[in-house]
Amino acid sequence: MIGNGSDELLALATRTFVEPASGKARESRSTIQYFTPSYSLYPVLAAIHGAATRTVRLAKDFALPDLTALRQSSDWDFQAALTFITTPNAPSGRAFSTRQLESLYRQHRGVVVLDEAYVDFAEENALELALNYPHVLVARTFSKAYSLCFQRVGYFVGHPELIAALDKLRDSYNVNGLGQIGALATLDHLPYYRANFRRIKATRARLTERLNAIGFEVLPSQTNFILARPPEFPAKKWIEELRRQKILVRWFSHPEVKDYIRITIGTDTEVDALVQAARSVLEHC
Amino acid sequence: MIGNGSDELLALATRTFVEPASGKARESRSTIQYFTPSYSLYPVLAAIHGAATRTVRLAKDFALPDLTALRQSSDWDFQAALTFITTPNAPSGRAFSTRQLESLYRQHRGVVVLDEAYVDFAEENALELALNYPHVLVARTFSKAYSLCFQRVGYFVGHPELIAALDKLRDSYNVNGLGQIGALATLDHLPYYRANFRRIKATRARLTERLNAIGFEVLPSQTNFILARPPEFPAKKWIEELRRQKILVRWFSHPEVKDYIRITIGTDTEVDALVQAARSVLEHC
Repeated sequence: MIGNGSDELLALATRTFVEPASGKARESRSTIQYFTPSYSLYPVLAAIHGAATRTVRLAKDFALPDLTALRQSSDWDFQAALTFITTPNAPSGRAFSTRQLESLYRQHRGVVVLDEAYVDFAEENALELALNYPHVLVARTFSKAYSLCFQRVGYFVGHPELIAALDKLRDSYNVNGLGQIGALATLDHLPYYRANFRRIKATRARLTERLNAIGFEVLPSQTNFILARPPEFPAKKWIEELRRQKILVRWFSHPEVKDYIRITIGTDTEVDALVQAARSVLEHC
Repeated sequence: MIGNGSDELLALATRTFVEPASGKARESRSTIQYFTPSYSLYPVLAAIHGAATRTVRLAKDFALPDLTALRQSSDWDFQAALTFITTPNAPSGRAFSTRQLESLYRQHRGVVVLDEAYVDFAEENALELALNYPHVLVARTFSKAYSLCFQRVGYFVGHPELIAALDKLRDSYNVNGLGQIGALATLDHLPYYRANFRRIKATRARLTERLNAIGFEVLPSQTNFILARPPEFPAKKWIEELRRQKILVRWFSHPEVKDYIRITIGTDTEVDALVQAARSVLEHC
């Protein structure tokens, strides 16, 4: 099913459980759950759609908690109507292995959405799970790796019955016409995009190596950005120092990630400029 | 507020009343009401959003029922959360006067949405009502008169508090970037569009006159289409006969409009070809 940008796909998925196809409003709230930190729009969309949320913090280094830990947690609900798992995840950049995802969602009774917005920069994808299990949906978008964020096009892969239910509930004309043409056109240029993915991964390795060399602790990334814990002084101060040198990177205030900065992979020249600026910060502060 | 195509604007408006901003689901269903026949997506969107619907049939020749009749009707609810009035209306092509709309919605306690999708082809618009009354919203779209249906861009005009509530509930990125640029670009070319509106209105008058001359009863239109009751044999047969001559016009099976065909205004050459085909049908059938 073609949808309209990954966040709107999520909204649609949420709606499935909040608003039944019968047209009757539900008496009780549906539960949407996800790990934190993850995509910041999950709680926003859940609130808009009147759903309750449950969250569990990711393990050390933003790994998935193991099953035993999850079973012991009163915060995780294996019966939840809808569970979102972003893989590779944002803002950590970390991917979860298909094997680990499989052992996790096999314990779930509700629908599990594997949000693969960044999957083209990863070593693995979980498409086979969506094709093999009736309660697993893979969500993809043309907004990241295919540079079409201006056009808001995404899609779900999953069991025909689940897709049919979502199709029934989506707004009409939810994907604009130029977006459809643009998305289809990318398929005629896959070699171009694949070369782009390789280039970004190579630049990501280059940036990781150079930042490690000057004391940053860079988390292994499977996305087009990295999350790095900078040395010497707080991440928030790093942001300000880098901005002074006209380098813009991101910082999030949430407790789980406040010690990190997020850097989008640019060109080799751009990431070299960042490393040069970081060296200069270290020398002068 | 900029939204995403008139139908998605309607969805947003519906959601306001179904899903409160608090994130708590409502226990009871909200009521959405509208006159019939009108835009066919109102009932679809109401069902998707879990809202109840109330409808009242338009009066003779698709005029608004008068207030006395509405007050006597047990089907109309002056307390309804949300009332949609399409003006000019589809599929009739008929517009309602601002004066009549004003006397109607002044009786309403809930929000009244004046859906002006076709207003650029009309003699009057009701924008002043949205600007003057806190419970009136005017919905506009770039999909009709501005030829941007491929990009799904529309907007609401209304009281700042109402707009702020809708803004809180809309999906993020609900209007795509190219659509925004396209919509803004139309503002630099208003003389072009206004010439287009004049041309369409002139062609509409030409088509109306020529169809009247061969026995069609054409309803007065304020849109870029006309609704006409054809002579001699049923509307459905007309559709088939015209299709045989490679002329495609629309027919709706709903009881209120099943005796009519809807014809979109094309170029002078196109509408002349239609009239010629209609003459030929009359001669040979």
